[in-house]
Amino acid sequence: MKKIAVVLSGCGVFDGSEIHEAVLTLLALARAGAESICIAPNLDQKQVIDHNTGEIAEDEYRNVMEEAARISRGKITQMSMLDIDSIDAVIFIGGYGVAKNLSSLAFDGPSYDVDPIVCDLIRKANNMGKALGFMCIAPALAAVALGNLGIKLTIGNDKNTATALTGKGATHIECPVDEIVVDKTHKIVTTPAYMLAQNILEAEAGINKLVNEVLKLS
Amino acid sequence: MKKIAVVLSGCGVFDGSEIHEAVLTLLALARAGAESICIAPNLDQKQVIDHNTGEIAEDEYRNVMEEAARISRGKITQMSMLDIDSIDAVIFIGGYGVAKNLSSLAFDGPSYDVDPIVCDLIRKANNMGKALGFMCIAPALAAVALGNLGIKLTIGNDKNTATALTGKGATHIECPVDEIVVDKTHKIVTTPAYMLAQNILEAEAGINKLVNEVLKLS
Repeated sequence: MKKIAVVLSGCGVFDGSEIHEAVLTLLALARAGAESICIAPNLDQKQVIDHNTGEIAEDEYRNVMEEAARISRGKITQMSMLDIDSIDAVIFIGGYGVAKNLSSLAFDGPSYDVDPIVCDLIRKANNMGKALGFMCIAPALAAVALGNLGIKLTIGNDKNTATALTGKGATHIECPVDEIVVDKTHKIVTTPAYMLAQNILEAEAGINKLVNEVLKLS
Repeated sequence: MKKIAVVLSGCGVFDGSEIHEAVLTLLALARAGAESICIAPNLDQKQVIDHNTGEIAEDEYRNVMEEAARISRGKITQMSMLDIDSIDAVIFIGGYGVAKNLSSLAFDGPSYDVDPIVCDLIRKANNMGKALGFMCIAPALAAVALGNLGIKLTIGNDKNTATALTGKGATHIECPVDEIVVDKTHKIVTTPAYMLAQNILEAEAGINKLVNEVLKLS
């Protein structure tokens, strides 16, 4: 049974992981007979967003790992404690948590950086020949960690975001919502998910393809 | 296109809606070509649970509707504002939010009660001949609102919980995780979901059947 680490960045599209993407990934992995290991860094969230109004909840503080554990029904591994040797691949879920908690993209734009723990995980897994999947805005993490390798990836077709990623050395390929971009050389699979999806079925189509391709490469 | 209200009670299995159940329901409804209207009451949560440790976060306060909006990507209707006439059926998601926020089951056991806004919605929808679906622990809501009608339902096979529900007048029928109990007379469909499910695939099997049966009855 293949073990796949699923990287979460909180719980909720505007300040954490996109919940549909996370559950669709866990579902696709279970269908394929793979085991999911949900992981998250033990970091404070940069923001808490009231998802009803869209406004910043100024006096609220939440922890990325504690919130991520909501999606995984309480079973969560701290990212820095993950034994990379023991897993076959890593899949990064999207949502603003990627741009706010795992990187500074939401605040710094093209000059953004990625949290060192996240960068380290991506580089180590890549060095060990593990397959990596990134959906939605998560390819922004790959661009910083592995941009020097000239990796190919997609975040859909948003020009500003694509420019930020190509600025890190990555090659951006436009991609429809129900498709994936596969960089076979570096074993990297990406799909736009809710960067483009208008509904849960559109997100599911690309995510299912991403999960199956990651499993094939691992 | 059928419109189905999906009732959420927060975001996270231990103090709100069970996230997998919610997303699997939205997915099944989308597959069937139905429109989902996510709704939640504008109430304070009774507790906030740190989902990593399982402990109560003593000084934290969260609002059921704001947290529920995380699952629905920001689109949430306040329960008391729902135009019941405009929808075809209502599906209640499980999770401890049902037993803590929508009812007092987690605190009061067999002498529990259900929030008046929730009770009112169930009774009105039933009076108007709408189909109702309840998964996981959510049948506890139906038992109070419609127990006097002698409705049939399931929460799986937990004896203590079943006794609490039969104490309200409902008839409990044992049911495996991948099956549903259908009360055709009262158009009520129930399934155990994570009351019994050991993994997301087991939950999905019963939820898909519940969604399809609710749509058939509506």
